[in-house]
Amino acid sequence: MEIKTYLTDQRQVVENALHSFALAAEGPFSRHIEAMRYSLFVGGKRIRPILCLAAGAAIRDNEETRNNLLPVACALECIHTYSLIHDDLPAMDDDALRRGKPTNHMLFGEAGAILAGDSLLTWAFDLLTDPAYGSLSVGQRLAITHIIARASGPLGMVGGQSLDIACENREFPFETLQTIHRCKTGSLITCAVQAGAIGAGATETQTGALIHYGNLIGLAFQIVDDLLNATSNTAELGKAAGSDLAHGKATYPAYFGIEGTREKALEAIEGAKAALTGFDAKAEPLRALADYIYTRTC
Amino acid sequence: MEIKTYLTDQRQVVENALHSFALAAEGPFSRHIEAMRYSLFVGGKRIRPILCLAAGAAIRDNEETRNNLLPVACALECIHTYSLIHDDLPAMDDDALRRGKPTNHMLFGEAGAILAGDSLLTWAFDLLTDPAYGSLSVGQRLAITHIIARASGPLGMVGGQSLDIACENREFPFETLQTIHRCKTGSLITCAVQAGAIGAGATETQTGALIHYGNLIGLAFQIVDDLLNATSNTAELGKAAGSDLAHGKATYPAYFGIEGTREKALEAIEGAKAALTGFDAKAEPLRALADYIYTRTC
Repeated sequence: MEIKTYLTDQRQVVENALHSFALAAEGPFSRHIEAMRYSLFVGGKRIRPILCLAAGAAIRDNEETRNNLLPVACALECIHTYSLIHDDLPAMDDDALRRGKPTNHMLFGEAGAILAGDSLLTWAFDLLTDPAYGSLSVGQRLAITHIIARASGPLGMVGGQSLDIACENREFPFETLQTIHRCKTGSLITCAVQAGAIGAGATETQTGALIHYGNLIGLAFQIVDDLLNATSNTAELGKAAGSDLAHGKATYPAYFGIEGTREKALEAIEGAKAALTGFDAKAEPLRALADYIYTRTC
Repeated sequence: MEIKTYLTDQRQVVENALHSFALAAEGPFSRHIEAMRYSLFVGGKRIRPILCLAAGAAIRDNEETRNNLLPVACALECIHTYSLIHDDLPAMDDDALRRGKPTNHMLFGEAGAILAGDSLLTWAFDLLTDPAYGSLSVGQRLAITHIIARASGPLGMVGGQSLDIACENREFPFETLQTIHRCKTGSLITCAVQAGAIGAGATETQTGALIHYGNLIGLAFQIVDDLLNATSNTAELGKAAGSDLAHGKATYPAYFGIEGTREKALEAIEGAKAALTGFDAKAEPLRALADYIYTRTC
């Protein structure tokens, strides 16, 4: 399959859905909603929502499944976007650029950016639990909301980010780097795949295989992120290149060198594709996405 | 009924529940969880969880209802706590004291405090959707999670906070102050009462009356907060007194004077109690809580 066409099409599907769900910047909170919308629509690969939809399609490739998963996919993107807004804050990574554009606090101020992040996170749970969208059973909706909350919180994404910051400019064992990667980036990626499986009515065996796939592409994704940060320039990356080194952050290249890191990423990708052995052609996009994660340049 | 004994007892019930649910500060994220626990257990009136339990008891006063509502009550307290941590940040109200103790960022740094708030918010949704706790139906659980997400997000609490900050040092119409109060403080209080009603299996009429009660005590609560900020000293308040004036925030006393503001609060309280006319003796705690909100001094 042609991954570039697939990604372009799927991004458009996600973009349309985000536009259909997102709050309009009107009423007494228009400026606040504008700040939420700015970061949500400033660009992005939309990898998490695409993975969620692709995991669902690997089980049941029809319009009902897709429509049921679109609010879930968009909620995942809102959570990802909020995490970027907060990560970029002066008190955190202090980044002025993201996706080649000014970060949220550069335009809306620190208070505005903190609140825009808070609202994107909260609104994601509003979207996930809104009976107005799709025809998921209440059981599916609740299960999906629960795994997303678990993956995004203190034992998942935020926990990983807190450890990442705590470890800046410090020596720490490789196991700690793995924990940071698994939680900060991996948990939401795995969860996107798992949510797609639940929403499409996957069996336990299918869900288990998809979680395994998710864990491995999540790992590969973060390893490639480390690589890009070390080897790209700022224009290619759309954010400050070399910032990991500048912040004294340990990364895969610091442990394994550039070539060794590439091998680790490839290993994870091969493992991810192997996890899909039991799936038919409907999982082709998931296989192509795994390859894309390895070859992407930004 | 003796409100002081009731509040002491109920606070203990909430405190015990928070301790039973809260994550232990251990493992790789122990410092992060410590930051969450610090603000969660530093004190507080626990008004929102107590209102939630009292609303449930006004419908069905038994152990099953109470046990079902305890995770909901604790989730509401987590959301309230996260909002205080973020409100206190240097980029927001820049407060060094809260409940007579150092604010979160004074102990855990700005990044630590932002992340502790993020995790408390996310973990609240984890708790709300965790099938391990209580025997609420999936439908009740989903409905409660949805109203809490709506009340806490861009159209509720965070929206109100964003407008509050945007209006600092500016003249604005009284309607805007009402919007700020209704959203920043009122929405989560109303929602606590409504969640209690849903969790106890209230009829639509009962839920409607309880929402009306919640709206009015929420209003009274914020008016009294304005009054206390204007008339108390820092030792009584446990946080910086007079900070509204210092931040150039419009408040009820600025529009109506101290006496006029007291009258407005009393009016709201009387309205709240009138909303409970159709309820029997099981609503006695809700009536007493309304009076307490008017007479509280901190």
